[in-house]
Amino acid sequence: MKYNIAIIPGDGIGPEVTAQAKKALDAIADTFDHHFTYTYAQMGACAIDATGNPLPEETIAVCEASDAILFGAIGDPKYDNDPNAKVRPEQGLLRLRKSLGLFCNVRPVKAYEQLIDRSPLKRERIEGTDISIYRELTGGIYFGEKHLSEDGQVASDGCSYSVAEISRIAHLAFKEALSRNKKLTLVDKANVLETSRLWRKTVTEIAKDYPEVALDFLFVDNAAMQMILNPKQFDVILTENLFGDIISDEASVIGGSIGLLASASVGTDNALFEPIHGSFPQATGKDIANPLASILSAAMLLRHLNLHKEAELVEKAVEKSLELNFTTEDINPESAFGTSKVGDFIADYI
Amino acid sequence: MKYNIAIIPGDGIGPEVTAQAKKALDAIADTFDHHFTYTYAQMGACAIDATGNPLPEETIAVCEASDAILFGAIGDPKYDNDPNAKVRPEQGLLRLRKSLGLFCNVRPVKAYEQLIDRSPLKRERIEGTDISIYRELTGGIYFGEKHLSEDGQVASDGCSYSVAEISRIAHLAFKEALSRNKKLTLVDKANVLETSRLWRKTVTEIAKDYPEVALDFLFVDNAAMQMILNPKQFDVILTENLFGDIISDEASVIGGSIGLLASASVGTDNALFEPIHGSFPQATGKDIANPLASILSAAMLLRHLNLHKEAELVEKAVEKSLELNFTTEDINPESAFGTSKVGDFIADYI
Ligand SMILES: CC(C)[C@H](C(=O)O)[C@@H](O)C(=O)O
Ligand SMILES: CC(C)[C@H](C(=O)O)[C@@H](O)C(=O)O
Repeated sequence: MKYNIAIIPGDGIGPEVTAQAKKALDAIADTFDHHFTYTYAQMGACAIDATGNPLPEETIAVCEASDAILFGAIGDPKYDNDPNAKVRPEQGLLRLRKSLGLFCNVRPVKAYEQLIDRSPLKRERIEGTDISIYRELTGGIYFGEKHLSEDGQVASDGCSYSVAEISRIAHLAFKEALSRNKKLTLVDKANVLETSRLWRKTVTEIAKDYPEVALDFLFVDNAAMQMILNPKQFDVILTENLFGDIISDEASVIGGSIGLLASASVGTDNALFEPIHGSFPQATGKDIANPLASILSAAMLLRHLNLHKEAELVEKAVEKSLELNFTTEDINPESAFGTSKVGDFIADYI
Repeated sequence: MKYNIAIIPGDGIGPEVTAQAKKALDAIADTFDHHFTYTYAQMGACAIDATGNPLPEETIAVCEASDAILFGAIGDPKYDNDPNAKVRPEQGLLRLRKSLGLFCNVRPVKAYEQLIDRSPLKRERIEGTDISIYRELTGGIYFGEKHLSEDGQVASDGCSYSVAEISRIAHLAFKEALSRNKKLTLVDKANVLETSRLWRKTVTEIAKDYPEVALDFLFVDNAAMQMILNPKQFDVILTENLFGDIISDEASVIGGSIGLLASASVGTDNALFEPIHGSFPQATGKDIANPLASILSAAMLLRHLNLHKEAELVEKAVEKSLELNFTTEDINPESAFGTSKVGDFIADYI
């Protein structure tokens, strides 16, 4: 089969880790006789430096023409602490999500046995944790109207949600719950926010279509506690954009390494796959970044293309690298391998 | 000395725990020859049930006439899952904060040696944790304009902040940092939100007045991770209303028991003291609720009245009860004492 894959390496360690994921995809293409055509595109700080625009038109075109997108990471400290910066790397990612309509961000959170002892949490609290977080990605306060008064004294951000925006991701989350442990937790702040009340109402309505799924509600402050106290209680979590950003990052550290977590951002016509970790500027170019999250993003990408056996093989290769301790220094400080060596191991195994 | 103290027992376990805090205050009055006049007032679900209003005018008047306010807890599940409810218990608390101008919520987070092993986090991660969280309490999306379209299809919440709102709490937080380890971390989402960028700009400006304090910035998603990975890195955290709600609740569980955390909500003319924990409806009336957070809230109240020795004595009594295992079942499941017995112990010790 033939597939067009857009690759956006992005900033910091993005290029290094996506290069390893590409090796894995190449090995899959070889083994299963697929043909992957890769088209590279720019986004983020590197795109600003090259073109002045964090998301050049061409990048959108490349993505639209693709069957799936593999993305690295975004962000550069030189833009973070300048409150007056007019262009920011992150705008590229936000605009891409919006332009392609990638409204549903899926983040699996799993406690890998090999990593549990590295977790800041006690083993008994996290053993067996297996959560799938559904975060709305193109609405809410991220995309509301922003305003700064002329005298610079008052700033504002608008947050809004429609029933349609809530419904489309809610259906996906309920379907995910059906295929798992049949539990869905809506995280909101319905005791304060009007938008949260609309989420609660809409999701309660939709739940009637999924009588087998048990629905419960958690205020976001309580969810932030429960994620640490007892993450095993969760199956599928559904939440709006900003709460999803916070809760999923919090969840990402309980398993022992953020270097292993991948995510998918899915829309009606396209999907983007990326590691949870950021651009990690301190590690850039040192061949020490952990490529496994990017490689697991490639596995999610394969599954999205309905290449299930292929995805499983990539995941098996990652498990093997953990089993044999063929990993980067963040996971295995004693006898660490470089980013590129780990990528080679995975490709060879495949 | 004479002081007027307003007591708002509130909902759920609120009345039981504030009754124990009052015992401690009575004992302090006896020992130090003070005169405390208590005036009781209603707020929350109990106030709705009694008057239809979660914050009767009289309650505001009682608070305004007081030197300090001791508050229990708010909330009742019967109001939580009704998206159509017109009146909610929480509105009472939010309106009280606004009416009295209680703009600065202070939450100390400490890992008590006696509780460390009960923490979900590993001992080495939290030993020595000592954080003071400054959360803005009368602005942001909590108090923005709320709207639901007539057809019920679109909901919105406005979020805004002014330089004045940011400055007054920022100064308090910098002063707190000066009296501690001289580190201030601003938690925001400046890569997305206009309000966060105003926070970053304003706080950066104010930092010039406090050259001894080291200021750094953390995006809220990253802060949610860092709070688990390495809470010891924090000294004073400053943040806006909603982020403060989430991050401080998250922080509250790392120490091993939320049953010991108190908080102060301070304004220009008044201050309210309450436990971090909620109304815990399942425990109501069972004499099992932990009164220590409420008692420690009373200690914070005494300190606010400049009664420092008195506050220290209350804190010493609490430490004694932990040392001697004279505590409720949440802390000491084997030989647990009732809420009221723990309150008696504290009062006797004083
Ligand atoms: C880079 C940033 C804008 C982004 C977000 O907040 O969505 C990131 O934190 C994420 O979660 O993908
Ligand atoms: C009860 C609720 C409105 C309140 C808040 O969100 O501020 C509570 O969670 C708190 O933190 O005091």
